[in-house]
Amino acid sequence: MKKLKRSARLVEMTQYLLAKPHVLVPLTVFADRYASAKSSISEDLTIIKEVFETEGIGELHTLAGAAGGVKFVPKMSREGALALVNGVCRLLEQPERLLPGGYLYMSDILGQPAIMNEIGRTFASVFGDRPIDVVMTVETKGIPLAYATAAHLNIPVVIVRRDPKVTEGSSVSINYVSGSNKRIHTMTLARRALKSKANVLIVDDFMRAGGTARGMIDLLQEFEATVQGVGVLVEAGGVDEEELLVDDYVSLARLAHVDPKTREIRMAPGNYFEEGTNL
Amino acid sequence: MKKLKRSARLVEMTQYLLAKPHVLVPLTVFADRYASAKSSISEDLTIIKEVFETEGIGELHTLAGAAGGVKFVPKMSREGALALVNGVCRLLEQPERLLPGGYLYMSDILGQPAIMNEIGRTFASVFGDRPIDVVMTVETKGIPLAYATAAHLNIPVVIVRRDPKVTEGSSVSINYVSGSNKRIHTMTLARRALKSKANVLIVDDFMRAGGTARGMIDLLQEFEATVQGVGVLVEAGGVDEEELLVDDYVSLARLAHVDPKTREIRMAPGNYFEEGTNL
Repeated sequence: MKKLKRSARLVEMTQYLLAKPHVLVPLTVFADRYASAKSSISEDLTIIKEVFETEGIGELHTLAGAAGGVKFVPKMSREGALALVNGVCRLLEQPERLLPGGYLYMSDILGQPAIMNEIGRTFASVFGDRPIDVVMTVETKGIPLAYATAAHLNIPVVIVRRDPKVTEGSSVSINYVSGSNKRIHTMTLARRALKSKANVLIVDDFMRAGGTARGMIDLLQEFEATVQGVGVLVEAGGVDEEELLVDDYVSLARLAHVDPKTREIRMAPGNYFEEGTNL
Repeated sequence: MKKLKRSARLVEMTQYLLAKPHVLVPLTVFADRYASAKSSISEDLTIIKEVFETEGIGELHTLAGAAGGVKFVPKMSREGALALVNGVCRLLEQPERLLPGGYLYMSDILGQPAIMNEIGRTFASVFGDRPIDVVMTVETKGIPLAYATAAHLNIPVVIVRRDPKVTEGSSVSINYVSGSNKRIHTMTLARRALKSKANVLIVDDFMRAGGTARGMIDLLQEFEATVQGVGVLVEAGGVDEEELLVDDYVSLARLAHVDPKTREIRMAPGNYFEEGTNL
């Protein structure tokens, strides 16, 4: 217990709330911590709430009553998300990213924690109202996106492996057909990685026909889990709707056009930004 | 430009600094942003600095002069790190973690973004004074540690793959012998992932004899890179010093004893906490 002036209290409460998203903090926690009246704490929270909302960082939800308190919910406005995605799209249009087979080199962008953090906040904002217990992805490139999303939702990450590993114990494996090259692959998840009947958000970096996402959905059936959403950073354009193996997903960006000869790459915002999406 | 009261300014500056570690922010940025005198901004920073230091979040470095400004440097005290590591050790001692071959199931702990964030802050604190351009790890389990560390240092992550991937372009591969089972493995890094002569911090989740870390060090020679440090979350105890393939590393925890019959696991703090380490 320490008596702090309002100014110091505001700094400390701000960092405390930012570090614990989606956690309901009873006002008595702050009142006891700072030896302050609850009414003072409430005034502090009003100031913090206003700044967080003006800055587009997120919302402070206050619940009244005995079981009440305050909860920081990270948010990203659609305009903020669009600005972020447009920035990523311009990076992805650099001609030197084009690899044989029409693939794009994205690892440098996925390797930047600050960008991942913002994309993660966007996914957390898109899916934050659904009941989600864990974020799932398949190794390797989707992992930073999964962690960034899970950090803002304050829930764990579960990583599907390509092969069973001795460090994972007994596991469940399935075969799946990748949509792009029609080859059969395996994916595997440790038995103990997921409680039965969990609510799962699937996140990945890239989706063409959705074979990998479909594989994860099928794997989740083995755990009686419920898929609460599928989020991908980039979807490949030009895939026929009948060919898509996943019909309900959110993409932030779309690979609209690739010309291997001129090395021209055109990116566009993903389906999240389309008119009429009710997300 | 918006005129803010001190209270709102403190909230906004706190979140701004927390979001941009290791970035030198000129005071004029804040003065312009809030239409305030630099002297007021300086007073605000004094308040923030005191809270950050009291709470053990990190340091605010202020540089005077024309090129001056303020920089937030995340820190973790040795006592804070020890408390964190002791908590992780108690989790790792749960008998049900023991897998065939004496391996420990750690993926659930590595799957918790909040714990990874604290471990990352610890590594960032341990290695933060060295010149580091990127954090490197090998897929898969070290990835969250690498991102968490890199986020606090505000630098990119580079991920070594087990096999060349079509999405990575041309790559450099090396063979290495794992210290534990003496088998030959391959690791590969995209040519474009690392600039020549980069300063690299290697981070991984587990080290037995150090074969994987040794492999990464050898791979880095191909890029004329300088290894600025090696940090592992858990090192296996009981490895003879002559058998160790890496002689300069920092471990946060040590697997002191495993009894496969009784399933007893004993963990201890790693070499970072040993007397006389000058880190």
